[in-house]
Amino acid sequence: MTATATIDAARVDAAMRRALELAARGPAVGVNPQVGCVLLDAHGEIIAEGWHRGAGTAHAEVDALSKVADARGLTAVVTLEPCNHTGRTGPCAQALIDAGLARVVYALPDPGEVAGGGAERLRSAGIAVEAGPQAEAAAELLRPWLTSARLGRPFVTVKWASTLDGRAAAADGTSQWITGAAARQRVHEQRAAHDAIAVGTGTVLADDPTLTARGDGGAMLGHQPLPVVFGTTPVPADAALRRHPAGLVELGHRDLERGLAELQERGIRRLYVEGGPTLASAFLRSGLADEVLIYLAPLLLGGPRTAIDDLGIGTMSQALRLSIHRIETLGDDILVTARPTPPQE
Amino acid sequence: MTATATIDAARVDAAMRRALELAARGPAVGVNPQVGCVLLDAHGEIIAEGWHRGAGTAHAEVDALSKVADARGLTAVVTLEPCNHTGRTGPCAQALIDAGLARVVYALPDPGEVAGGGAERLRSAGIAVEAGPQAEAAAELLRPWLTSARLGRPFVTVKWASTLDGRAAAADGTSQWITGAAARQRVHEQRAAHDAIAVGTGTVLADDPTLTARGDGGAMLGHQPLPVVFGTTPVPADAALRRHPAGLVELGHRDLERGLAELQERGIRRLYVEGGPTLASAFLRSGLADEVLIYLAPLLLGGPRTAIDDLGIGTMSQALRLSIHRIETLGDDILVTARPTPPQE
Repeated sequence: MTATATIDAARVDAAMRRALELAARGPAVGVNPQVGCVLLDAHGEIIAEGWHRGAGTAHAEVDALSKVADARGLTAVVTLEPCNHTGRTGPCAQALIDAGLARVVYALPDPGEVAGGGAERLRSAGIAVEAGPQAEAAAELLRPWLTSARLGRPFVTVKWASTLDGRAAAADGTSQWITGAAARQRVHEQRAAHDAIAVGTGTVLADDPTLTARGDGGAMLGHQPLPVVFGTTPVPADAALRRHPAGLVELGHRDLERGLAELQERGIRRLYVEGGPTLASAFLRSGLADEVLIYLAPLLLGGPRTAIDDLGIGTMSQALRLSIHRIETLGDDILVTARPTPPQE
Repeated sequence: MTATATIDAARVDAAMRRALELAARGPAVGVNPQVGCVLLDAHGEIIAEGWHRGAGTAHAEVDALSKVADARGLTAVVTLEPCNHTGRTGPCAQALIDAGLARVVYALPDPGEVAGGGAERLRSAGIAVEAGPQAEAAAELLRPWLTSARLGRPFVTVKWASTLDGRAAAADGTSQWITGAAARQRVHEQRAAHDAIAVGTGTVLADDPTLTARGDGGAMLGHQPLPVVFGTTPVPADAALRRHPAGLVELGHRDLERGLAELQERGIRRLYVEGGPTLASAFLRSGLADEVLIYLAPLLLGGPRTAIDDLGIGTMSQALRLSIHRIETLGDDILVTARPTPPQE
């Protein structure tokens, strides 16, 4: 343990940044977090790398350990507190103890009631444990997973496209295409980064959407989100959604909290709310939006068909306040990524 | 004249960029364009600079000539074709001829029916004349003035502030403050860069605005735009607008084309349309907006009070298409500067 103390903080920090890169290679969808791990020798050199490739496969720590013949005395740098839970794989904390690691550094504590406690277990076994390097970057990468773990419901992304005056369609209901090709492609990529897509029955009946995730050549992307329909009207027998490769969930009601609980049960951790205006507004009004994606097309339409309808707000002081996370241009369109700001006391 | 031919194109271009910097020092308001001029010796060195400081003062060329004892054989580099018109000052073309200049290079031709013809007059006097360097940058600087000269009416900037879902107020009519301090300060600066500000009677009655241009410390800026009220309802005797330092114009009607013609007569070349929604929408619907400034605050309000109301658009193909010129963040707000795109054939 004296040798490991010679690895300076800058080296550990660099190793954690590498571990975060590895983490991001894993799938953003599914019930497990994206985690990366590197193993350092006594000089702070990276001698093995690992990351988690999705539920049922090795966790990042075990993946990294599998790359070395003898891990005794090494330092593990891992983006999330090693788990203390036997699921489809054994607890990583025990694997690190068994391998004879000298020191474990992680960015973020595991918030899970089930998987937490790994640090304690490591310390009890005499391993030096530290937390904190790159914690902010790790929290940003894992924001959907952490939010879902904290709230016990799927992370909800609410997306809409409107003109610069906030309209989603012209007076006669026509809306194709408000945004251009680059924005539409980004929507496909965002669908592929979520477990499920929610729409209301009104949108199903009006637009007959396919809700698949496709590449810009039109081919299906590797992950297809599960389409979920909020509302009581049945999806027509000939609807495009009935041919969706991931299947179809008809909730048969429009109760958002109940719907989210049902999706949580099914292992959905990231939900992409595509609309229409009624469903998007309902999620916003209920305080159930964790991220808001607003595509703004360089058009003005005026008229009655706003992208967001009633939010139950009577006066300015009740306005739903967002904090802008990013502003991008995609072709001629603008994408604003924002997050609801917690109410000020 | 042979010596002047040795000034290479890159030097002329650099001189024109300098002349544009000088031009921008002049006032953006008033009936005269912003013009800058530099005089070059036979080696292409700048030996004098001038710019126009507003109606009734020396034009840029005359200002530059006043800095040299002997201008014979020099090259004048000027951002706009020298005028050929005797107004409150004499024609610049004649002043350049009288001073014995050898060569004149300008960026843009003068579109004015009255002031044009300067290049011809210079050529007839045996002066070498060229046009074109930095023409695009000069056209951007003079866009309002050129547009006004071409159309024979004031250049119209339509500005509004809304939430990201396109609302200008909450359901109860409250709207202070949608945007933050940095955005509000920019509005004051934009007011000061226009000859007049237009509002509808509805806004006067609802908000009792002052429509002054103030610095961030609250002090009046040097130029105060003339407030102009569209509509038939008289401005109340105790309205703040009646105390505006630039006076007050009550048109007594809401006919936009007639109003613009009346303002043109008064020497107004740049009009800032502040709203409310009815007036802003009317300018947009009539195709009378030359520039659109949209302040987007990181808020959502929903509800009935949209910043833009009806634009007379029935279907998507009739959408008013904008081309985005600039996207800025001002504090927490976004400012989108856009220009209507001519209809595609």
